[in-house]
Amino acid sequence: VTDTDVTWVTDLRNLVDVNDGESARDQHAADLSFHPPVRPQVVVYPESTSEVAAVLAYADRARIPVIPFGAGTSLEGHVIPISGGITLDMSRLNQIVAIRPQDLTATVQAGVTRLQLESAVGPQGLWFPVDPGADATLGGMAATNASGTTTIRYGGMRSHVLELEAVLPSGRIIRAGTHAIKTSAGYHIGGLLLGSEGTLGVMTELTLRLHPIPDHVAVARVPFPTIEAACFAAGTLIAAGIQLTRCELLDAATIEAVNSHTNAGLSRTPHLVLELSGTEAAVVSELDVVREFVRDDGATGFETVSDPRARTQMWASRHDALMALLALTPRSKAMTMDVAVPISELPAAIERAHCALDATELRGGIIGHVGDGNFHVIVVLDPADATSLAHAKSLNDRIVEDALARRGTCTGEHGIGSGKLQYLEREHPDLLPLYRGIKQLFDPNEIMNPGKVIRLGDAYAPGNVASA
Amino acid sequence: VTDTDVTWVTDLRNLVDVNDGESARDQHAADLSFHPPVRPQVVVYPESTSEVAAVLAYADRARIPVIPFGAGTSLEGHVIPISGGITLDMSRLNQIVAIRPQDLTATVQAGVTRLQLESAVGPQGLWFPVDPGADATLGGMAATNASGTTTIRYGGMRSHVLELEAVLPSGRIIRAGTHAIKTSAGYHIGGLLLGSEGTLGVMTELTLRLHPIPDHVAVARVPFPTIEAACFAAGTLIAAGIQLTRCELLDAATIEAVNSHTNAGLSRTPHLVLELSGTEAAVVSELDVVREFVRDDGATGFETVSDPRARTQMWASRHDALMALLALTPRSKAMTMDVAVPISELPAAIERAHCALDATELRGGIIGHVGDGNFHVIVVLDPADATSLAHAKSLNDRIVEDALARRGTCTGEHGIGSGKLQYLEREHPDLLPLYRGIKQLFDPNEIMNPGKVIRLGDAYAPGNVASA
Repeated sequence: VTDTDVTWVTDLRNLVDVNDGESARDQHAADLSFHPPVRPQVVVYPESTSEVAAVLAYADRARIPVIPFGAGTSLEGHVIPISGGITLDMSRLNQIVAIRPQDLTATVQAGVTRLQLESAVGPQGLWFPVDPGADATLGGMAATNASGTTTIRYGGMRSHVLELEAVLPSGRIIRAGTHAIKTSAGYHIGGLLLGSEGTLGVMTELTLRLHPIPDHVAVARVPFPTIEAACFAAGTLIAAGIQLTRCELLDAATIEAVNSHTNAGLSRTPHLVLELSGTEAAVVSELDVVREFVRDDGATGFETVSDPRARTQMWASRHDALMALLALTPRSKAMTMDVAVPISELPAAIERAHCALDATELRGGIIGHVGDGNFHVIVVLDPADATSLAHAKSLNDRIVEDALARRGTCTGEHGIGSGKLQYLEREHPDLLPLYRGIKQLFDPNEIMNPGKVIRLGDAYAPGNVASA
Repeated sequence: VTDTDVTWVTDLRNLVDVNDGESARDQHAADLSFHPPVRPQVVVYPESTSEVAAVLAYADRARIPVIPFGAGTSLEGHVIPISGGITLDMSRLNQIVAIRPQDLTATVQAGVTRLQLESAVGPQGLWFPVDPGADATLGGMAATNASGTTTIRYGGMRSHVLELEAVLPSGRIIRAGTHAIKTSAGYHIGGLLLGSEGTLGVMTELTLRLHPIPDHVAVARVPFPTIEAACFAAGTLIAAGIQLTRCELLDAATIEAVNSHTNAGLSRTPHLVLELSGTEAAVVSELDVVREFVRDDGATGFETVSDPRARTQMWASRHDALMALLALTPRSKAMTMDVAVPISELPAAIERAHCALDATELRGGIIGHVGDGNFHVIVVLDPADATSLAHAKSLNDRIVEDALARRGTCTGEHGIGSGKLQYLEREHPDLLPLYRGIKQLFDPNEIMNPGKVIRLGDAYAPGNVASA
C-alpha cells in the first residue's frame, strides 16, 4: 500500500465501511473460475444507494478503479480487480423492498440473492425463474444478463427487469424503465445497463417480474444412444412447439462423473432432462406428446416424476454436474466454455465440440441448456499447469470459432468479463466503436470495472465513431 | 424547392431512385394520426442496404434530414418530416431472405410487412405474433418497439429480434445480435436501436423469432357491468397465472360505436375479449378456470368459440373499433392515447380516464391490452377544430400524469415520435443527458429523423453527461 493509497483509503473511511485487511482482500480477489486472482486495495461495504454514489463520485475524481462485487460467482473474471482499486461489495444492500402479488413484481436491492428472493415470494405462490445455478445476487445476474435452465420458457434477466436504479461513475443516480409491464418510452438505457458487467455504472435496485408457481410440474429423464440424437430430439421438441420449462443435456462423461460422485447409477449414455409445467391436464397431455417424439428420435428410456421430492432428486444429477466434474481432479478449477448456436446447428456443434474435447488429454464434460442452443464444455484443470491451461484455451478458441461460423455467439449467458475480450472482438468487430463510445459516455474516466467487456485504455475520441 | 435543393436532389439521383413529385411528397407527409402533415423535399426508394448507406452518407455530409418511412402507420408523428429533408421509403426492401422452420426464425428485409411475413410462414405452420393492428413494416415495428394484442403471451419486438442489420448516418453498416436465441456478448446495441424511432440509424434487415401455430385456440367474449369490474377480472386472471394469448378490453362507448358501424348487436356494456391457445386439453381445462374466475368477478355472460371463422368474427369488434369510432364524426382523425400502468393500478387508472373523457365534449372510447396494463383513450376529432384539439391534448396530459403517478409509462407501445417529447421528459428527466449522449454518438450531425424522441437542436457537449 503506497502513501497515495493511504490518503484515499482514509478519505473513503469517511464515506463508507472500509476493510483493507488481508482476509477481505483475498475473499474478493477471485471468482469461481480458473482466472488468476488479483486483490483489490480495499473492499467497501455500502449500506445504501447514497453510499454507493458517494464512493463512485470520490473514485471518479480520484481516478481509482471500482469493481462491483455481488456473490463472486461469475465465470469470466468479471469481479477480479485486474488493475487494483476498490471492490464495492454489494452484500449489505440486501433488502427486499416490496413484493406485489397482484402485479407479479418485486423490488429488491441489488445485493439480494436469487434464493433469498425465492424464499420471500414462495409463500405467496410466486417465483422468480431465472436460475443460473449459483446463488448469485440479482444485481450480479442483471449485470451479466444471466439466464439458465428456465430461459427456454421465461427468458433471461433482460425479460425480467422492469425498472432499475443505477449509480453512474459521477455519483448521479438514475432510474430506467417503469413498473408497467411494457413501454416504448425513449432509448433503452435499462437494456444497456443490463449485461454491461459493471463497466457503465452500478445497479442498486431492481424491480423484477415474478411468475405464479405452476400448478403441476413433471420432470422426464431420457437417455439417448448418442449426443447428436439427444440434441436432435431437443430440436424436434422445440420446432413442434412443445412448451418446455427446462431442457437440459448431460453427456456420457458428465453422467459418469455424477455416478461416481453420488452413486446415481444412471446408464452411461447422454441424457436429456426435461421439465413441463402448467395445469395438470396440460402437462399430462404434453408429456404423452413428448414421449412419442423422443422415442421416434431414438430415446432408449423415459422416466418421469412429478412429486416435488422426486423432481429435486431427478434434477440433482444436473445440479451436481460441476461438482462431480471438479471431483475428478484434485485441486482443480473449471474452465466453463459457453457458446450458443441456432438450434438446427446444435447437433453438429456439439458433435464437433465433443470430438475436440476427446482429442485432448483434458478431463471434462458437456452440459447444456440445449433448448436454447446453449452449451458448456467444462474442462477441469490445475490452473498452475501451464500446458493444460494452454490446451484448454486452444479448445475454447476452436469451440468459439465454430459457434461464430454457425452464426452463434461466444457467450450464451456467462458474459465477456476479462476472459472473452478477444472473442467479443471477433464476434462484433463492427460494433467496437459503438462499445467504446458508450463506455466513454457513461464512464469518461474509465473507473468502472476496467478491462472488462472492452479492452483497457482504448483511447476514444467522441465524434469519431460514426466515421471510424 | 431552392437552388441548393436542386443540387442535392441531382446528386441523390445518382445514388437511388428519387421522386420529388407532389403526389409522392403528399403520401409521405403524414402518419395515421391527427398530427399535422409536413412534406419532405423528396422521397427516395432504396432497393438495397448499400443504397441506404449511400443515401445516408451523402445526407450526413450535406447535413440533410433523413426520415425513414415504413408503412406510415405510426401514431405520434414519427414519419412526419417536420424539418423537411429526404423521406427514405423502405417499401422496396421487401424480400423475405430466409425462413428456418427448425430454428423458428426468419430473416426479412425491413420493408417486409407483418401480413406478408404471416402469409409466407403460415404454410409452414409458423407465425409471427407481434400484432400492432395495422399492417406495418417489420422495420417500422422494430423502430418503435411495437407490441399489441399478443404481447401478454409472446412479448413485443424486443423479444423477437435476434439479429439486426442497420445503417448508421455515416453510411457504416453494422450487425447487432446473432442467430442464437440468447447471448450475453457485449453492450446491447440491438436493444438500443429497437425503439430508437429512426433517430440513430436505419434498420435494413431483421432476424426474427417465430412460433409454431398453436394446435387449438379459443376466444371468449365476456361482458361486465362496469369497466372497473372488467379490469379487475383481467388482473385476477393474470395474478392466477392463466396463460392468456390475448386479453383485450372494449368500453361501452366503443361497443356502441361498433354496434352502429357493423350491426354487431353486442350488449352495451364493457367487454373483455380473451384468447387461450395450446393443446386442446390445456385450452379446455383453462377455459373452465377462466369461466369461474370471471363469474366470481361479476361477468354477466361468457360466450366462447374455437372455429377459426367464428374466432375471426368475434375478434372483429376489436379490430373494427378504431374505424367504428372514426365513423362517429365526419372528416375526423384520431388522437390515440397510450399509457401503461402496473396491473393493480389498472381499474383506478381506467376509471379516472373514463371520467375525464366523459367530462369533456369529446367523442371517443377506451380500448386496451389490459393484460399488460396498457390502454388507449381514443378521441376522434377534426384536427382543424382548435378547441377540440386543445381539450384532447389537455385530456392526454391528465391521463399521462396519472399513469406516471402510478409508476407507469407515457407510452406502452406507440413510442414518442414528436407527439410525446414533453411526456418523455417528465417520465425520465434523469435520463435526458444519456439520451442526448447516445444521439450524439450515433448521429453527431443530427440528420436522422430530427425532432423525434428528443428535442431538436439540443446542443450536447460529450463528456458533460456524467457530471450534468
